[in-house]
Amino acid sequence: MTEPARPPEELGALAQRLLDDLALVTDEPGRVTRAYLSPAHGRSIELVGGWMRERGLDARLDAVATLRGRRAADAPGRGRTLLLGSHIDTVVDAGKLDGCLGVAAAILALEEIDRRGERLPFAVEILAFGDEEGVRFPSPLSSSSAATGTYRRDWLVVKDRDGVPLERALRAFGCDPAKIDEAAIDPAGVLGFLELHIEQGPRLEHWGLPLGVVTSIAGQTRMGMTVVGMAGHAGTVPMELRRDAFAGLAEIALTVERIGRQGANDLVATIGRVAVLPGAGNTVPGRVEASLDVRAGVDASRLVALDRIRHEAERIAARRGLTIAFERHVDVPTVAMDGNLQNAFAAAVASLGLDVRRLPSGAGHDAMAMARAFPSAMLFVRSKAGISHNPLEWSDPLDLGLGVEAMIRTILDLAARERAP
Amino acid sequence: MTEPARPPEELGALAQRLLDDLALVTDEPGRVTRAYLSPAHGRSIELVGGWMRERGLDARLDAVATLRGRRAADAPGRGRTLLLGSHIDTVVDAGKLDGCLGVAAAILALEEIDRRGERLPFAVEILAFGDEEGVRFPSPLSSSSAATGTYRRDWLVVKDRDGVPLERALRAFGCDPAKIDEAAIDPAGVLGFLELHIEQGPRLEHWGLPLGVVTSIAGQTRMGMTVVGMAGHAGTVPMELRRDAFAGLAEIALTVERIGRQGANDLVATIGRVAVLPGAGNTVPGRVEASLDVRAGVDASRLVALDRIRHEAERIAARRGLTIAFERHVDVPTVAMDGNLQNAFAAAVASLGLDVRRLPSGAGHDAMAMARAFPSAMLFVRSKAGISHNPLEWSDPLDLGLGVEAMIRTILDLAARERAP
Repeated sequence: MTEPARPPEELGALAQRLLDDLALVTDEPGRVTRAYLSPAHGRSIELVGGWMRERGLDARLDAVATLRGRRAADAPGRGRTLLLGSHIDTVVDAGKLDGCLGVAAAILALEEIDRRGERLPFAVEILAFGDEEGVRFPSPLSSSSAATGTYRRDWLVVKDRDGVPLERALRAFGCDPAKIDEAAIDPAGVLGFLELHIEQGPRLEHWGLPLGVVTSIAGQTRMGMTVVGMAGHAGTVPMELRRDAFAGLAEIALTVERIGRQGANDLVATIGRVAVLPGAGNTVPGRVEASLDVRAGVDASRLVALDRIRHEAERIAARRGLTIAFERHVDVPTVAMDGNLQNAFAAAVASLGLDVRRLPSGAGHDAMAMARAFPSAMLFVRSKAGISHNPLEWSDPLDLGLGVEAMIRTILDLAARERAP
Repeated sequence: MTEPARPPEELGALAQRLLDDLALVTDEPGRVTRAYLSPAHGRSIELVGGWMRERGLDARLDAVATLRGRRAADAPGRGRTLLLGSHIDTVVDAGKLDGCLGVAAAILALEEIDRRGERLPFAVEILAFGDEEGVRFPSPLSSSSAATGTYRRDWLVVKDRDGVPLERALRAFGCDPAKIDEAAIDPAGVLGFLELHIEQGPRLEHWGLPLGVVTSIAGQTRMGMTVVGMAGHAGTVPMELRRDAFAGLAEIALTVERIGRQGANDLVATIGRVAVLPGAGNTVPGRVEASLDVRAGVDASRLVALDRIRHEAERIAARRGLTIAFERHVDVPTVAMDGNLQNAFAAAVASLGLDVRRLPSGAGHDAMAMARAFPSAMLFVRSKAGISHNPLEWSDPLDLGLGVEAMIRTILDLAARERAP
């Protein structure tokens, strides 16, 4: 029994309704906070599991509390599985969209594919990951890592703020850490992983486009910089005899900004945390500690920028009689999204009459871990003002609907190709 | 009975011995800390009062616990009094010199004048002030203010860290706050106030000079600056769409430094306190709060610099899509030192075969308050590396001796003029 296709406005309104309902499930009344393995995480699994079962999916929890809703193929194919999804944990005081959109959109896409009478020659499994944000435990992407068989056992001993180790939290949640290996999905049978997500940045809005195809998840280097000069009395040390650590950092910061602006492949460079010591209004700063975060869609762009920043910073420090030291904390290479799946998303976006724009993701996502084992791709939905990790996070419901419709068309495109000889 | 003049080496060693003894009197064993009206302050008054009495001075405490050692004129004159001195309170974990040198040097100078058989046609009063630093109560220069009749009654109700009001602390120390007005010295009978002090800055050392004549105590403006932009994800907001409050402050900081360097009359401009918000390594700063401290030996230089800084900062903020707000906390005009007394110090320095260099004081001193009522002047002694308010504070004992000898010659010069018809 075939029903007429619901237009993007309607799909968007349906998605918004699911997201509104899910946002009511929180650990902190009055704001949206769902930490991994928390009571709200448990209730969100019940809610989303219900949505899955209502639509004929077989929903179960794996050993790291990823909710998995599976349905078999309903047309002849090659016995493969298409993975869809995102995460249902949130940051503290979150918005409604980050992660949840990818889960709700996948559920709605399957519902709509059924309503249109389309048959799929592959099984579909919707994954609602529980530990993308890494808020409760310092183990971001642990649940998607388990799905790829790259779970790190040392995560099990890390503790939350209350001293509870992750292993104990898993058991208390009803999960068996001994079975984490069984959560791994055999790549041989997987067609790919598709994730719909809000952009969390301002570029699509700037371009006037509701959707964008993700080319890669940006590699990232996080460093600490320590600049040391000589503290002194703000009244008695003349300008020409100062070795002002903060003035040195200021010059370095403008260099970081300039190199970031000149860089290729969506290079961004940020100084976000700064401590000025001793930190008194009447004292020339003797020491400054600052963070440096550099990301780009291509590793070479990031590494060249880091070299330039380091070289220029050392030159500035030497000229000012300061010392500078760098400490590298995080160094994650760029993860490319699968070219064929990118093209499938791009064709779907174009079929909606929209300009196709490709962009790297500056933030990490489950697709970053999933790409270790499976062809993976992401489609971004325009974010209002680029705001995310904030209750003001918002996307136009029409854009959400366009995202769901693009996901439907991508799945149908993959289905057509899966059937082809 | 006349004895031969002791050379500067010997005077310096004597001064160092007094300073070493005084440094043993502390509220915190292991480091030098003498807060106003503390037990150590009381013991330091006994010690210094003893030094005064041994040298024939009449020592007493006034209503704000300033130790005053007085001796009458021993030659015919006009019935006037020369005031000498500095303070014996210290910052927390202080050096041995700041303040104490001016008291010890005055005592030694009188002793040496006696030994040389010189007679003075004016009375001399050595003032050992107790509240210059304003460490225990937010009432810096309160004791020298009392000597000038400009004590602020609202200081009496301010409380220390333990909730003790200044008025109660004075009474517990044996002082009578009702008699503060009686601590005022009649300007009509005062020839002037002379203060020997360490420079607490690096300029004399830079010039290779042991002594410098202070022209003025720099006026000072302290402001708060708040720069507001838009916080954002360090990975998802491209460089060209950022409104990075810290990058804005960095540009402003370099402008502050440049204007400071270009300024006349020993202008200094300092950003010493900086808070970057939200302050996470992966977040573009949305808000920055910073201090601005501007001083100069001449008010016009300071005010012109402030105008330029404000104008340039507003221009930078506007170009970057940021807002900036200024809040003025402190605005103290420059206090000029008395020209005749400066010249007397200069003549004494020249008579020692030293280049005469004049410089403003960037830090506040008792002479700043004393200048309200009396002709006042200061002589600076070279500080090692400009370090002060620190146990590493140090001056070569020879420099201390040269300071004492310059003080002796200045007093004798004033004596010669006082006797002149």
